[in-house]
Amino acid sequence: MKYNYLNNLPLDEAKEKYFEHLKSVGFKGLTEKVPVPDACGRIIKDAAYAHICSPHYNASAMDGVAVKAEITFAASERTPVTLTPEDYVVVDTGDPLPENCDAVIMVEDLIECGNNNYQIISSVYPWQNVRQVGEDICMGDMIAPSGTVLTPSLCGALLAGGITEIEVIKTPLVGIIPTGDEIVPPVAEPEKGDIIEFNSTVFKGMLGSFNADSKVYPITPDKKNLIKSAVEKALNECDIVLVSAGSSAGRDDYTSEIISSLGTVLVHGIAVKPGKPAVLGEAKGKPIIGLPGYPVSAIVIMDEIVSEVVSLYYGKLKPVRETVKAVLSKKIVSSLKYSEYVRVTLGRIGGKISASPLPRGAGVITSFTKADGVLIVEQNCEGIDAGEEVEIRLYKPLSQIENTLIVTGSHDPLIDVISDFLAKKNAPFRVCSTHVGSMGAIYAVRDGLAHMGGIHLLDTVTGEYNKSYIEKYIPDGKAVAVKGVGRVQGLMVKKGNPLGIKEFSDIKNVRYVNRQRGAGTRILCDYLLEKNSISPDEINGYNNEEFTHTAVAALIAAGNADAGLGIYSAAKMYDLDFIPICNETYEFLIDKQYLENPMVKEFLEVLYSEEFKARLSEMGGYV
Amino acid sequence: MKYNYLNNLPLDEAKEKYFEHLKSVGFKGLTEKVPVPDACGRIIKDAAYAHICSPHYNASAMDGVAVKAEITFAASERTPVTLTPEDYVVVDTGDPLPENCDAVIMVEDLIECGNNNYQIISSVYPWQNVRQVGEDICMGDMIAPSGTVLTPSLCGALLAGGITEIEVIKTPLVGIIPTGDEIVPPVAEPEKGDIIEFNSTVFKGMLGSFNADSKVYPITPDKKNLIKSAVEKALNECDIVLVSAGSSAGRDDYTSEIISSLGTVLVHGIAVKPGKPAVLGEAKGKPIIGLPGYPVSAIVIMDEIVSEVVSLYYGKLKPVRETVKAVLSKKIVSSLKYSEYVRVTLGRIGGKISASPLPRGAGVITSFTKADGVLIVEQNCEGIDAGEEVEIRLYKPLSQIENTLIVTGSHDPLIDVISDFLAKKNAPFRVCSTHVGSMGAIYAVRDGLAHMGGIHLLDTVTGEYNKSYIEKYIPDGKAVAVKGVGRVQGLMVKKGNPLGIKEFSDIKNVRYVNRQRGAGTRILCDYLLEKNSISPDEINGYNNEEFTHTAVAALIAAGNADAGLGIYSAAKMYDLDFIPICNETYEFLIDKQYLENPMVKEFLEVLYSEEFKARLSEMGGYV
Repeated sequence: MKYNYLNNLPLDEAKEKYFEHLKSVGFKGLTEKVPVPDACGRIIKDAAYAHICSPHYNASAMDGVAVKAEITFAASERTPVTLTPEDYVVVDTGDPLPENCDAVIMVEDLIECGNNNYQIISSVYPWQNVRQVGEDICMGDMIAPSGTVLTPSLCGALLAGGITEIEVIKTPLVGIIPTGDEIVPPVAEPEKGDIIEFNSTVFKGMLGSFNADSKVYPITPDKKNLIKSAVEKALNECDIVLVSAGSSAGRDDYTSEIISSLGTVLVHGIAVKPGKPAVLGEAKGKPIIGLPGYPVSAIVIMDEIVSEVVSLYYGKLKPVRETVKAVLSKKIVSSLKYSEYVRVTLGRIGGKISASPLPRGAGVITSFTKADGVLIVEQNCEGIDAGEEVEIRLYKPLSQIENTLIVTGSHDPLIDVISDFLAKKNAPFRVCSTHVGSMGAIYAVRDGLAHMGGIHLLDTVTGEYNKSYIEKYIPDGKAVAVKGVGRVQGLMVKKGNPLGIKEFSDIKNVRYVNRQRGAGTRILCDYLLEKNSISPDEINGYNNEEFTHTAVAALIAAGNADAGLGIYSAAKMYDLDFIPICNETYEFLIDKQYLENPMVKEFLEVLYSEEFKARLSEMGGYV
Repeated sequence: MKYNYLNNLPLDEAKEKYFEHLKSVGFKGLTEKVPVPDACGRIIKDAAYAHICSPHYNASAMDGVAVKAEITFAASERTPVTLTPEDYVVVDTGDPLPENCDAVIMVEDLIECGNNNYQIISSVYPWQNVRQVGEDICMGDMIAPSGTVLTPSLCGALLAGGITEIEVIKTPLVGIIPTGDEIVPPVAEPEKGDIIEFNSTVFKGMLGSFNADSKVYPITPDKKNLIKSAVEKALNECDIVLVSAGSSAGRDDYTSEIISSLGTVLVHGIAVKPGKPAVLGEAKGKPIIGLPGYPVSAIVIMDEIVSEVVSLYYGKLKPVRETVKAVLSKKIVSSLKYSEYVRVTLGRIGGKISASPLPRGAGVITSFTKADGVLIVEQNCEGIDAGEEVEIRLYKPLSQIENTLIVTGSHDPLIDVISDFLAKKNAPFRVCSTHVGSMGAIYAVRDGLAHMGGIHLLDTVTGEYNKSYIEKYIPDGKAVAVKGVGRVQGLMVKKGNPLGIKEFSDIKNVRYVNRQRGAGTRILCDYLLEKNSISPDEINGYNNEEFTHTAVAALIAAGNADAGLGIYSAAKMYDLDFIPICNETYEFLIDKQYLENPMVKEFLEVLYSEEFKARLSEMGGYV
């Protein structure tokens, strides 16, 4: 079996090497002339200087009458001046000032006195109420320097300055070639083994945000000659070519070889995680980039390298990236082998912005959909402690992050449903929920990292929920649990219960799927094991941990496991059988100082609403 | 002459009245189904839930061999395990895990030992190197709540979740009707009295940024029936209609009347400056808005009201607006009659962001092209003192504002030329220059409001430039003047010098145009007057003040004045005759703490470069 190790070039070196090469082969966008009314958002090649003044003639700034100012100098309340038709010319706003006039009297200041005569009781000074030539723009003034992105008002100013056409940099066309035998176009019900091709959609969207157009080519199977032909075609038609997948060094990875045969591979393998197996190449003076097949890896390369290739095309060195300082909520360990891109959620709480790391797997596109930004852990850094200040590259505008209700704790689909109810109500904030289990909620609220979180913690001594845990872990009383829902916990098993599971102790004989440590459901599991005198070692799959009820249900439905503890609504969603075990109290732990917070109040309002209760009863298993 | 006074409804009341009405008539965007690959940037109607899991089957996460994990449990360096072809199935990344396998061994960990046998020296645990069903997305999970704007990664997640089509809100089409007898389409050389129609270009660009499409109708003259027909046509074809100009209450202002005849006018006249003469109306359930003719007034109404009409269409209450806290550099006086929109430039200096007000005229589109943000002075506020902290609504990303070299002082076109040289060199900062005269530079640098500024201040006693002023006004020595350019000052007069002006004292007999107080050129003027024993009262136009050399030149070229002091390059630009008066020393005053600032250094590097000197000599008048 073929396997070649990749290089592991530090990101900065890889970029420098690549961009120096692209510059040396003259990679750069051509220009075109476009009408200014269509030029908004485009980048101008050279500085734009006004051809004419604006206004280009002396214009009345008001509706009224134009006069020679000096005839009004004597006017006052005691000594009104009368204007006869020989003294004035009626003008509207924008009209050219007639010859021999140098001021305008506003219509509001004219007192009609018959025979088209007017009285005035105050004077005007020369050029009053006149927009003199060049008031806004003087011929020869620079309207914008080279390389400016044209805003709507700049387009207006160019037109006002007599510029009707302007030379701008052409919008680059980026060819995207999806490759892979197992890849299929998006379908609702893929066959087993079919990988839905969604990366090109992600790339197309990102390229749009880089101000690049894109052309997605048909999916090409893993055949060297077919991919090579596709690349050659794209090289002829596009300014930049992206080959999706096949960028590593495995059996079916041809990207590097194909680029070498057409031009030059500068870099193969970058010390960045995710994103390592990227190929940076060039042929015919155009960049060809091999993107990793895993979506998250590819997005990192798009964000970090393709965006800068587009900037280089536009003659700019680096795209502008907004950043914000935040406090890291959880320790991160990172390898010295790579610089690592850790997606985070952000929210302002207690005066600081806190950053919570999301799952780091390369295949987890949802770690990007949920991400508010990314923390780049430098290659020479082994990790960052909780509480440290870090710089986050923003994916969303800060204003959105400022207005975030942070709900950190036990998973229940009802939190998403509440956030949707709030969205439909146009609530002026968003809900950012992360699933870290009930104990996670206790720590997050205690440490000021969340406004609130769901908890369902069984005290195995008293049989009560939550109270004793809060007293133990938050003895200063800074947080309080408010009413949430009652819900049924039970064993989820395959439809029809083929293994005949009747009670909890039956899990000894089947493949179990567990929840993560700290989850309320895990604590319930451990309690039930102890009660039944079963050791965790006896459970096949005890260490197979999932983070949500739906994840457990999904694995049982797929046959990866035979049983798992979870809530009824998850079992129903996956059409599983459900063996009820107990009713539990799912509450929301809230930092007391946020009880009157409008976001928290609005969240609870939905939770307690009749409309929401109706929805819960549809979902099932809430009591 | 007809004149009706407008209402003066406070902005918040106007908006509330208008939006309540629009809601009451059911104004709201329709929806359409679009393929997810084309849905990036669109707003989804309802929450999106995954139809399938992702991965939807157990997939190999690596290239390697799939095995039953338990057969590897004994493997260690001392006790290698040998896999025969019956024990494994070769898999590539993404392949479905074969029946009876539950783990993958990476190709890197396989030691070939002939006959297709492999040795391994470490075990794998169940599900290791396998992407289990639902690792990324579980069927039934909410991918995004209602009203979410689809990002590239969200589109990817939808496709991964088996959603190929999605219901989104239609993009609204906004009709723009430019009106006015004097309005002409953009031309390079308009006739006197022609007003170049650039507002629709500005609106189109702004609407794009609000996620609305636009259709610009032909210019309609000021005829009531023609405008009415145009509005009716646009009402049939568009979701929102904008009528540009004619929104006031003058002779030719028909917008309000026309809307009344077709539907309802809710508001005519808003207490906002600029922007007062706006009409907010509705017909056939669609908003019709009469925009003021002055571009700046119209932009304020677009920004404040039309953007929110589009948000309402999309079912969102308010567009997100980024703001920043800044320190006001100059006192602002404002009327209690209006809330006022003061455009400002922004830059970070000395740890704070400082905000400098731009010209406030309604016709000055360049006050928007230069603006980094806007300060909204509330209606109940009479003014704001210099040094107060204010909130600025941002027009540009903060990162751009952070990297700004602030050059505040005397006007010379060479500053724009330097900023263009820097742009061409891809300098990682921008130059923000404001023309407040040489004394303005002294105050701005002294008060920490600018990094540097141009000065040319003649000491009329010693004949020296700048030195004595700096010593007097900045006695603590915190700033220093560095070498700039020598330049020729003189009288600019009409080509051919028809009035036969020979020397400075001749301005007694002609119409003069002056520079503003504090300008070095104004100080020169006052010095020359005194030297020639002429009183300012004897000068016709002494109070006619302009802020730049080009503005003075433009007025002389237009015939508004006969003479003015200025630099040779401005006279040359306007093809004026030039009577040299003196050579002066134009220097840059720099706060000493910024002498080593990279932006300042790069600015001076350009200033002293041979390439720049060559450009100066083309411009002429520099010595």
